[in-house]
Amino acid sequence: MAEFTTDTQARAPERTQRPGERVTVSGPADGHEAAVILERVRAAVDPALRRAVESLPRSLRRVALYHFGWEHADGTSAAGNAGKAIRPALVLTAAAALGGDRAREAAVRAAVAVELVHNFTLLHDDVMDRDTTRRHRPTAWTVFGDADAILAGDALQALALRLLAEDPHPAAGAAAARLASCVVELCEGQHEDTAMEELGPGEVTLDQVLVMAEAKTGALLGCACALGALYAGSSTADVEAMDAFGREAGLAFQLIDDVIGIWGDPVRTGKPAGADLAARKKSLPVVAALTSGTAASAELAELYAAPYDEEDLARTVLAVEEAGGRDWAQVQAADRMARAMGQLARAVPDPEAAGGLLSLAEFVTRRSS
Amino acid sequence: MAEFTTDTQARAPERTQRPGERVTVSGPADGHEAAVILERVRAAVDPALRRAVESLPRSLRRVALYHFGWEHADGTSAAGNAGKAIRPALVLTAAAALGGDRAREAAVRAAVAVELVHNFTLLHDDVMDRDTTRRHRPTAWTVFGDADAILAGDALQALALRLLAEDPHPAAGAAAARLASCVVELCEGQHEDTAMEELGPGEVTLDQVLVMAEAKTGALLGCACALGALYAGSSTADVEAMDAFGREAGLAFQLIDDVIGIWGDPVRTGKPAGADLAARKKSLPVVAALTSGTAASAELAELYAAPYDEEDLARTVLAVEEAGGRDWAQVQAADRMARAMGQLARAVPDPEAAGGLLSLAEFVTRRSS
Repeated sequence: MAEFTTDTQARAPERTQRPGERVTVSGPADGHEAAVILERVRAAVDPALRRAVESLPRSLRRVALYHFGWEHADGTSAAGNAGKAIRPALVLTAAAALGGDRAREAAVRAAVAVELVHNFTLLHDDVMDRDTTRRHRPTAWTVFGDADAILAGDALQALALRLLAEDPHPAAGAAAARLASCVVELCEGQHEDTAMEELGPGEVTLDQVLVMAEAKTGALLGCACALGALYAGSSTADVEAMDAFGREAGLAFQLIDDVIGIWGDPVRTGKPAGADLAARKKSLPVVAALTSGTAASAELAELYAAPYDEEDLARTVLAVEEAGGRDWAQVQAADRMARAMGQLARAVPDPEAAGGLLSLAEFVTRRSS
Repeated sequence: MAEFTTDTQARAPERTQRPGERVTVSGPADGHEAAVILERVRAAVDPALRRAVESLPRSLRRVALYHFGWEHADGTSAAGNAGKAIRPALVLTAAAALGGDRAREAAVRAAVAVELVHNFTLLHDDVMDRDTTRRHRPTAWTVFGDADAILAGDALQALALRLLAEDPHPAAGAAAARLASCVVELCEGQHEDTAMEELGPGEVTLDQVLVMAEAKTGALLGCACALGALYAGSSTADVEAMDAFGREAGLAFQLIDDVIGIWGDPVRTGKPAGADLAARKKSLPVVAALTSGTAASAELAELYAAPYDEEDLARTVLAVEEAGGRDWAQVQAADRMARAMGQLARAVPDPEAAGGLLSLAEFVTRRSS
């Protein structure tokens, strides 16, 4: 699954948009507010996150400390790159938007729990997908083996739900139930993702890949926002609206991430050009192109059915574009962001209170192509 | 990890002890009471367990339904062999012993949660250990692949903790926290087990293998008893005593299971003679023998360092015995059972109230060699 770290790291958070630069989903903010929020969230969440991980028995702790970037493989201390903490930021910012500073402070455990769940899924997904790089370092399973990576993931899920079980806050029970349900959805999304890998280019429907992306990426962003609302004591309707906000923004993010995976500047994305196409990834723009019923879609299907050949890269990129994959993804992303904004306005009508969430949503989705 | 199913299935529960038959840890009961308890527990727990599993999305559900023996690999309905439900039985019987029928009824969700956690660990352990048979059927990963077996396990853990998160009972939060802590310990036990596989016969200490067995087998039996006590509203001291009771009984079970793995009758154990030795398993009697400092221990180390040769089996069995492995394990098992009884008497002084737990402890440990 795509991580916010890859892209945001390559870019200084203070970077302002350059004149003439094409922006997929534009917003008024320049990312500065989001960067400030994320830094504050890291500071608020890291001590408790670290404490939770340090509570593990040594054998599992070293895998988790490595995965979070706090230790090198040999157990020596590392500078740390535990990601941008988008999900904890959504928990705390949603709590603050709906319940003020007090709710934000109360929701720190929930924010840590969400981050633990996210990292549990990363550890397991990397084992299943045989991915060898995560946050610019070798993945945990390549260093410690499959068994320890699986066990460390299992333990992080347990830690997440223990944190909520030990939380005396009246919302903790509902938050734990919601987070556990979200884990089931994340598993379903990962199943669909791996199952789709086995299918031929003509066998995947657009609906299937959208459902998969929502389960795999949208669900946890939605859950993070919903948990913030629960800790703010919000009504069921507002909790659901916040969940929908996070889901829609998450899907917009995934669409844009997939666009960047094809048309993005390798210097900025940190991935070689065409890596997703070379891996025959059934990303959202590719499936949209494949199912468009155009001449270009037939050509794309043919290219995708054959093993990757570097000489075909330009033709493949063009076929996705000509079959309407890029336009579809950009329109979809804008549409999802509009829906996200609608849900946000429903739960948090005061634009000032909604400002932080708006900034975060724009931060994750406003990425130059 | 050893399962209670293997042995108990090969034996009719009503079977009485035959005259002159050697019994490792003898008890007055003939297993009939335990069989009645287990049948009642299965009936009390299965509907909720099945409901929880049925709530999963289709892709994960089919793996879980297969694993529990409720479906064949092709999705058709199966007679079902979800195991003997020892852990749920401990939850409900402990609740009844300390809080009567009302506590037993209230604790059904906790019993289901414990059973879900147990099965989550079985699914994952089988992937890591590459075990191909479980409850007389091919393991889930051999049928559905590693990814789906891992995901189904992840989802079962989430279901377990969601059940407790949704439980309005005042003990549910403490029970969830305790169960989550137990998951971490189970993971640690599995780590130690896989790590020990990599070590040479002279590199494993007896303490190490005892700690591993307690984490891997004792912890969840202890947790099951502790959850029952929590749902009965017991004092912290009684909850801890019940945890210790389950742990000690679990270790006694593991010791006897290991003895049976070497000297048991293959017809009864359902495993070929010497399978554990052939696999060079560092079981408790073997490690006791290896670390005994006798002439036989040196011979055993030499045999274990070489690849298995069927002609050496009798010599290997004899070496474990001569090095004192069998005696040590039997004395240890009796000692652990005595300690378990002591803990039980502390929490449940009334012998009549303790009767059910006593029967269950004897049921899991009273196995003929």
